[in-house]
Amino acid sequence: MKHTKILNEPVLDALTQKAHHIHTLFNDHNITAFNVMASPGAGKTSLLLKTIQHLKQLYRLAVIEGDIVPIDVDKIKQTGVQVVLAHTGGSCHLDSIMMESAIKKIAIDTIDLLFVENVGNLICPANFYLGTHKNVVIASVPEGDDKPYKYPTMFQGADVVILNKIDYLNDHEFNIDYFIKGVLLTAPNTPVIQLSTKTDKGFSVWIDWLTQTKQRNQ
Amino acid sequence: MKHTKILNEPVLDALTQKAHHIHTLFNDHNITAFNVMASPGAGKTSLLLKTIQHLKQLYRLAVIEGDIVPIDVDKIKQTGVQVVLAHTGGSCHLDSIMMESAIKKIAIDTIDLLFVENVGNLICPANFYLGTHKNVVIASVPEGDDKPYKYPTMFQGADVVILNKIDYLNDHEFNIDYFIKGVLLTAPNTPVIQLSTKTDKGFSVWIDWLTQTKQRNQ
Repeated sequence: MKHTKILNEPVLDALTQKAHHIHTLFNDHNITAFNVMASPGAGKTSLLLKTIQHLKQLYRLAVIEGDIVPIDVDKIKQTGVQVVLAHTGGSCHLDSIMMESAIKKIAIDTIDLLFVENVGNLICPANFYLGTHKNVVIASVPEGDDKPYKYPTMFQGADVVILNKIDYLNDHEFNIDYFIKGVLLTAPNTPVIQLSTKTDKGFSVWIDWLTQTKQRNQ
Repeated sequence: MKHTKILNEPVLDALTQKAHHIHTLFNDHNITAFNVMASPGAGKTSLLLKTIQHLKQLYRLAVIEGDIVPIDVDKIKQTGVQVVLAHTGGSCHLDSIMMESAIKKIAIDTIDLLFVENVGNLICPANFYLGTHKNVVIASVPEGDDKPYKYPTMFQGADVVILNKIDYLNDHEFNIDYFIKGVLLTAPNTPVIQLSTKTDKGFSVWIDWLTQTKQRNQ
């Protein structure tokens, strides 16, 4: 399981080659890296904050925040975990050049797991391989149940799909079967983990998925 | 009020020139056009469906749907209003070339108001002027109160900001003052309309804003 699904089957251009170098660098340092992608407000940062709480005694963690402004960096900093801003300069996605600059600011000899929080966007980030091992795609209940159908490229490339904010399921017209069928249509072997970062329901499944992925990647 | 705020002060390149031609075409036909932008799942289509219910007796309406798949087109079709898919081919925004093709499929002599539903994305659409008169930016409560701070270019270009899903305000840690201050910081003269397409609360304010904008544009 050393290879992520590479989205949009990229040509081996300069960006992709750089991403492959980053991937090798991660493997050489026994780092497992996750590319976390979602719409704005789906809960990427909240998921990371809670994940750090659960895992920081078990693994040495670091976070790269792809953003224009450092709001999320400041939130992660408070956990005591290494965090670096990958400045996107207004771009709608991270690429391997931004990743390379960010990685230089991390003490990579001292970490086991790296989370990359991509720019809030369900389209562009799907087309740029960053050298990470797994693509984590988050959708959230208030966004509606049609997201896998409307953003097939993003879901196609997911190694795991997280359905966040399931505490909203009761008062929202969200057909969970329709959502899951949409994921299965585009990515038949991709697990869907239903959770709420607010109530903690389902969160242990995500933590298990992470630790198992880490173990298999060693 | 014939001119929209043009985002990112574009160079007069081919795309922008085309957008200006579209703008002139709209004016010649006495059409007022709105560019509706938001994250995926913020409620663009729901807002349009309800807006059509309110306005279809008063004005002749049409909708351009910027999307990869025609899910939203089918929903709008059921209202009986003219609707055209502007096929983005996987792109993360609409541009004036896509607009031009879509407009050719609309009977523009027969409409008063045109709504363009842009691709679900808070970044890229802000950089492409489409020839429309007003930029409508929707944010929704479950996305969190920090969106104006995190996506300043999008909010800077807004002529009106809609805060949707206010029925979630009670059970969500959403600081409404922080949100509004964020809008005012980036776009000091932009009204914020708080509404819920589910409960109808606040919806008449949006309808008033639309009808007044139409009257001033005539």
